[in-house]
Amino acid sequence: MAEKDLKALFLHQLKDTYYAENAIVKALPKLAAAAQAEELRGAFAVHLEETKNHVKRLDQIFQHLGEQPQGVECKAILGIIAEGDEVAEEFQDGEALDAGLIAAAQAVEHYEITRYGTMLAWAKQLGLPEVEGLLAETLAEEESTDELLSELAEDAINPQAA
Amino acid sequence: MAEKDLKALFLHQLKDTYYAENAIVKALPKLAAAAQAEELRGAFAVHLEETKNHVKRLDQIFQHLGEQPQGVECKAILGIIAEGDEVAEEFQDGEALDAGLIAAAQAVEHYEITRYGTMLAWAKQLGLPEVEGLLAETLAEEESTDELLSELAEDAINPQAA
Repeated sequence: MAEKDLKALFLHQLKDTYYAENAIVKALPKLAAAAQAEELRGAFAVHLEETKNHVKRLDQIFQHLGEQPQGVECKAILGIIAEGDEVAEEFQDGEALDAGLIAAAQAVEHYEITRYGTMLAWAKQLGLPEVEGLLAETLAEEESTDELLSELAEDAINPQAA
Repeated sequence: MAEKDLKALFLHQLKDTYYAENAIVKALPKLAAAAQAEELRGAFAVHLEETKNHVKRLDQIFQHLGEQPQGVECKAILGIIAEGDEVAEEFQDGEALDAGLIAAAQAVEHYEITRYGTMLAWAKQLGLPEVEGLLAETLAEEESTDELLSELAEDAINPQAA
């Protein structure tokens, strides 16, 4: 019978997040290509490089646990990305397109913030300090991207969209 | 041709969130029924009542905008809820079940936090102070539920799950 303890749950969440990060690596170039404002295209490009690094950190965490890196389908991120695609299509060439793209990207960020926050608490509980350190680095970058997108929206994008 | 400005985007997001809140009203009793710890069942029950109130606030916002309350399918929340169902099934009767349910609920909270945060910024931009007030009330409750779940996990649920 399969284990159903916190370590098994952690591994399940790790695979879900691995799938999600790889899906985001594919989605970000599409968001960048759709964006009208150069500053926003730049922000998406920077975050793409960070996200590739997040995948590498997850690889390291799998190694720490003696497991092969592997994803399990993450319906949440697929739904969040699909909604972003819908907004990009529906508001194409409109004044509010970039505001919609930022909202989509922030929904992605918040999904990652909750998953990394949860895994960080679990790693602490499981006594895995190296894993904790890797998760904390990525969490800090996701939070910082989310804040950057909020500032960009409030200072530049939303006023143009209104 | 359909409007593609910030007001149209706001209305689109409002309908998405209306659908999401109504989906959460249906999902929370299932989470509560699955939870093992009485404290967690209680937290889900309290949040169910809050969520019903969030739906009422959205009704009021539709009224402010002169629109009929209406949802549009929110693939993001459907994906997030489906993942919670998967974890509930996979970890049924296991030590880590409640930790998985909390993670699922926090993913829901973070989805709402990002959507209400975005709509709050847009309402500010659009000069809709009453709408802003209603959104801010709900946002504060979502953030407070998220913090409560983190405390419950770290203080009581995770140690039992490990």
